[in-house]
Amino acid sequence: MSLFKLETQDSKARAGTLTTTHSTIPTPVFMPVGTRAAVKSMTSEDLESLGAQIILGNTYHLYLRPGAELIEKLGGLHQFMAWKKSILTDSGGFQVYSLSDLNKVTDDGVWFQSHIDGSKHFIGPRESMEIQRALGSDIVMCFDECPALPATTEILKKSLEKTHRWAKTCREFELKNHQHLFGIVQGGLDLKLRMESLQALEELNFPGLAIGGLSVGEKNEEMKELLQAFVSHMPTEKPRYLMGVGKPLDILEAVKAGVDMFDCVLPTRNARNGQMLTSRGPLNIKNERFKDDQNPPDPDCHCRVCQRYTRAYIRHLITVGEYTAGQLTTYHNLHFYLRMMEDIRKSILEKRFDEFYRNFYNKFTSNNF
Amino acid sequence: MSLFKLETQDSKARAGTLTTTHSTIPTPVFMPVGTRAAVKSMTSEDLESLGAQIILGNTYHLYLRPGAELIEKLGGLHQFMAWKKSILTDSGGFQVYSLSDLNKVTDDGVWFQSHIDGSKHFIGPRESMEIQRALGSDIVMCFDECPALPATTEILKKSLEKTHRWAKTCREFELKNHQHLFGIVQGGLDLKLRMESLQALEELNFPGLAIGGLSVGEKNEEMKELLQAFVSHMPTEKPRYLMGVGKPLDILEAVKAGVDMFDCVLPTRNARNGQMLTSRGPLNIKNERFKDDQNPPDPDCHCRVCQRYTRAYIRHLITVGEYTAGQLTTYHNLHFYLRMMEDIRKSILEKRFDEFYRNFYNKFTSNNF
Repeated sequence: MSLFKLETQDSKARAGTLTTTHSTIPTPVFMPVGTRAAVKSMTSEDLESLGAQIILGNTYHLYLRPGAELIEKLGGLHQFMAWKKSILTDSGGFQVYSLSDLNKVTDDGVWFQSHIDGSKHFIGPRESMEIQRALGSDIVMCFDECPALPATTEILKKSLEKTHRWAKTCREFELKNHQHLFGIVQGGLDLKLRMESLQALEELNFPGLAIGGLSVGEKNEEMKELLQAFVSHMPTEKPRYLMGVGKPLDILEAVKAGVDMFDCVLPTRNARNGQMLTSRGPLNIKNERFKDDQNPPDPDCHCRVCQRYTRAYIRHLITVGEYTAGQLTTYHNLHFYLRMMEDIRKSILEKRFDEFYRNFYNKFTSNNF
Repeated sequence: MSLFKLETQDSKARAGTLTTTHSTIPTPVFMPVGTRAAVKSMTSEDLESLGAQIILGNTYHLYLRPGAELIEKLGGLHQFMAWKKSILTDSGGFQVYSLSDLNKVTDDGVWFQSHIDGSKHFIGPRESMEIQRALGSDIVMCFDECPALPATTEILKKSLEKTHRWAKTCREFELKNHQHLFGIVQGGLDLKLRMESLQALEELNFPGLAIGGLSVGEKNEEMKELLQAFVSHMPTEKPRYLMGVGKPLDILEAVKAGVDMFDCVLPTRNARNGQMLTSRGPLNIKNERFKDDQNPPDPDCHCRVCQRYTRAYIRHLITVGEYTAGQLTTYHNLHFYLRMMEDIRKSILEKRFDEFYRNFYNKFTSNNF
């Protein structure tokens, strides 16, 4: 069975289905981030009740703790965290660059020091594949280099050359039968480089492709333009994954350009700081004005949090620092994202995505709480 | 309808039913502690699924944040925290003595400084009743003085006199119709003083009585002896609540002496430190030996955590500091307590409490994980 089936296109926006041995995933899809074998403040039961079909795990974190060997010994990441549906793991590359004390990038990979205990490690394309194979995720990402933007064309070109060489090493590695390897297109904001990168990866014929190196410091408008110009050149029959994106309106914009898959820590991380996403925009529940507000966080939301709790109560919990606060705000925010993706998909299937986008945008930017 | 109905006695151990307007509570009962309008790491849905019929709220904390006036304005504590079953609130007395910067105990109450912002406050019996009335809890506790043990007889006597005078003030206060006021027997480890205290409170004819001032520094054996000597003198027809107790074996001991109600932070607080209670004793899930242990925390437990997750996984979560860890360990520990109370009750109804106690004790002290 093929990994991806495109069902409908409404202009460039796409509705499809990803099928792994663990679940059937309607697209466009948002993948909650479960960095250390848990989506923060959520249990696997919570994720099931939210209807998540796929979550993301971070190779860098899992490699350091509890270690890929241990997870493999315990039956793989699915069994370890008691999650029966799909898992995508990143390559560890991004975190090696952003979290660790970086020692040295060589032609073969990266020497780095753990951000936890300073211990020395090496991860290159081969090591990343070994770890992800041990984790047993359904979708495996190539180990790439991800230069910070803005970057000169020269830096981007050198980086690209390395990324493509590493992609080849990854592609030649034998993963488990149920695993699918995605290539990662790099090239910054340079359409020509992106096209070169796409061509190089297409020669390796990955079952899916990701767009890496965006949402790393460039302007929002620049990302939008690059996506509009580039995404439709990607092969129609393969899933397209925009890594690390993003805010609700960024996702809408990327869907409009033809992207199928997303992940971002925003709904979970911001939840813990009191930002609750609502149909009328992001609401800072810590705000004094919600002190005696008996409305649910989002009156238009049907999640179990909005059906039961008031803004005043959640504000109280987060103000005093109760653990329960993060559970309620995270659940709601993930519900918001997953329902948004459902609604987007429905509008594409019904060929009214533009109208949906307009309505969503107008309401979401109203801030009329 | 009367608050309490005694169903069976097996020697001194009692099985009964507490009935409030919010729920029917089989006794002996353990009340999870929801200090600041939330049981830490639990949602109200979690507590429902655990089968909790009554929880405890702390007057001192709620008075300081978010304030009793606000909670009353928002419909009372039940509505505020979206908890439909019963709530018992303590008087605030214990926390005033133990948490705040104590300024001065007068004949009428206590001047103290908030442990949060240093602001000055006064709570006496009248103020405690006003706050608990505003909170709208089902069971309201008298404002008492709780001297630390050991204490001289003279100190205890003076304190008792004050506690009884304050109890009278509380009793004369008009609470809401659905609220039941409990008197608190003090007197330390001195049986004679305890009997005097009981007599003084009985003159005020409270619908329920608590035993205060235990588990505050005395030896375990001393508490056990006092309970065995004292509890059976308390009126048969009234519920008996042992405040702040305790460990599983302490509870068994107190049930054996005739106590009906308990509360303690132990299952929730220790959960966050990695102590999971099992039928074979307390298990420190952080222990290295559980690193690759694929057993559930307690193989004899039927809670949703033990049905799904391994020791290895929970150990990982708590080691790396994931929020989800506290959710899983807390849920399990509360399940352990609530099932223990169910089992105790069943054994009393079937007149085999002593046998149950023996078996529970032997298994619980085996530490055979």
